[in-house]
Amino acid sequence: MAEVSNKQLLLRDYVSGFPKESDLYVTSSTLKLKLPQGSEEVLVKNLYLSCDPYMRNRMKKLLNPASYADSFNLHSPISGYGVAKVIESGDPKFKEGDLVWGITGWEQYSIINATQAQTLFKIHDTDVPLSYYTGILGMPGMTAYVGFYELCSPKKGEYVFISAASGAVGQLVGQFAKLLGCYVVGSAGSKEKVDLLKTKFGFDEAFNYKEEPDLDAALKRYFPEGIDIYFENVGGKMLDAVLLNLRLHARIAGCGMISQYNLERPEGVHNLMHLILKQARLEGFVVTSYYHLYPKFLELVLPSIKQGKIVYVEDVAEGLESGPAALVGLFAGRNVGKQLVVVSRE
Amino acid sequence: MAEVSNKQLLLRDYVSGFPKESDLYVTSSTLKLKLPQGSEEVLVKNLYLSCDPYMRNRMKKLLNPASYADSFNLHSPISGYGVAKVIESGDPKFKEGDLVWGITGWEQYSIINATQAQTLFKIHDTDVPLSYYTGILGMPGMTAYVGFYELCSPKKGEYVFISAASGAVGQLVGQFAKLLGCYVVGSAGSKEKVDLLKTKFGFDEAFNYKEEPDLDAALKRYFPEGIDIYFENVGGKMLDAVLLNLRLHARIAGCGMISQYNLERPEGVHNLMHLILKQARLEGFVVTSYYHLYPKFLELVLPSIKQGKIVYVEDVAEGLESGPAALVGLFAGRNVGKQLVVVSRE
Repeated sequence: MAEVSNKQLLLRDYVSGFPKESDLYVTSSTLKLKLPQGSEEVLVKNLYLSCDPYMRNRMKKLLNPASYADSFNLHSPISGYGVAKVIESGDPKFKEGDLVWGITGWEQYSIINATQAQTLFKIHDTDVPLSYYTGILGMPGMTAYVGFYELCSPKKGEYVFISAASGAVGQLVGQFAKLLGCYVVGSAGSKEKVDLLKTKFGFDEAFNYKEEPDLDAALKRYFPEGIDIYFENVGGKMLDAVLLNLRLHARIAGCGMISQYNLERPEGVHNLMHLILKQARLEGFVVTSYYHLYPKFLELVLPSIKQGKIVYVEDVAEGLESGPAALVGLFAGRNVGKQLVVVSRE
Repeated sequence: MAEVSNKQLLLRDYVSGFPKESDLYVTSSTLKLKLPQGSEEVLVKNLYLSCDPYMRNRMKKLLNPASYADSFNLHSPISGYGVAKVIESGDPKFKEGDLVWGITGWEQYSIINATQAQTLFKIHDTDVPLSYYTGILGMPGMTAYVGFYELCSPKKGEYVFISAASGAVGQLVGQFAKLLGCYVVGSAGSKEKVDLLKTKFGFDEAFNYKEEPDLDAALKRYFPEGIDIYFENVGGKMLDAVLLNLRLHARIAGCGMISQYNLERPEGVHNLMHLILKQARLEGFVVTSYYHLYPKFLELVLPSIKQGKIVYVEDVAEGLESGPAALVGLFAGRNVGKQLVVVSRE
């Protein structure tokens, strides 16, 4: 019975304020690559791990357990979305060699319990980069799809604004909107990202929010007629500025508020009265409530990827050891495109 | 051709901060009680005038004319909802003696122009107090109906919270919710109002927000399982506290934010992330977009009033001279129930 070394990434302690690489550490344990007799678990080899904004909240000591994600357990590897290969399965839905995506551990090998295994998605189409299932073909892709199509009911010609637009979700929202015939503007935090939005993803306009002393003025420049749809990834000052620029019956999909996650107290948003004046809607969502739409989503997005109508940019960190830098970098906006960590390429 | 004296109420200058009675003044002009030949206007005698929270914004110099209500004109009487009797009509829809409700002037007699006359509602049922058409049977009633039924899709047994609950809109929302079988709690700003909510309007609970140092704690006391529906009339700190107490898939109908109207800058709302965590919605609305539902609304509410299933409390100020105190008092919460001004009882 093979016993292997299993590198793992753990959180040292709960973090308030800005996370540092040293808040995380890599250690090693051993694991038997065999499930016990009668087990309903799934033993997997992890290939790609996904760095996602919501993980910042899991690094906090959360007081309210009703939140959509619990605090990380300090005594086992952190968990998150990933792509993995099944080594052995006690769940009849999976067999050795299957590729899956879903919640797994930040480690080389994971034993996924029977309940958690119910939430794994089997990967059928491997005609695309496998790492895409951490991004455009996984949770972030579904997030873009649900937030844009299900919550915002977009129409051709509408004015669409996306914050954190070069990230895993934003880049796809923008491309969906362009394919539909919308006018699309994105904000991001560096010249490199802004260039990417305009040249690679086909946004009509993009701007670096760090270089805009007056976000309201920036939005008025790009949206002289106002904003119909705002895909909200950042919160705080950007949301406040967007509220001043809504068109009648505007829709805001509340996906995340990454600019607020490292603050002790979130910033105040002052312009909510404009939701009333413009008869507009701000609706929050959590993608897991919409996973029943995944097949419909794949039908839309897989052909578009293969035909080159939708492109995707990843920021790939090599090896579990690069995990702390990759994850912490996400909260500083250091990544360009979807941040992921390669544990193993097969 | 009869020429009459016409008392009028005007705004002295645009107001920032807290309005004072002296910001308004009553003057008198004269008017011929006869329309010119071929006029399409409607000449009315005003009976009841409505004091409504949105009027505070009209007392400001509004920079953004896209707002749902323009600034008052300083050189003519202020305008607002009222009940009036037609003296002469150039619009074939109305004839002498008709009773109407809609936008009119704060004066004894008004000439309503042809465009504005299109928005007048003819009053058919006079088997209820005529003043009700400034409140429960007029714009505020429709506001309660639209915000609760159309925006919140309420279900029996849900937990409903209403701020400014004894006001023209709130008292009706609470009674709608009780009739549907919801658990209903209201907040108001005095013991008298709180008593009214519990004894007269049948709310399950009510509290005086001025006596609650911690609104979050107050809401947790009354809603240990959280809030499904919040009918938002006040904004600011109350909204922030409600956000901490949302149930999954909660709906907030954004009707108004009266606590913010006298501030130079609206307060910051910090807890919007909870809209995402709870997959909840905050939707603003303006009742005028829903006036096509007025007949359906009357069908629901008129029988309920006549059968005593829905009651209504008015705060009646006598005479146009009492207008400044009545209107300014509304923004200080001095009214108990729907504030209106009687110009003439017939």
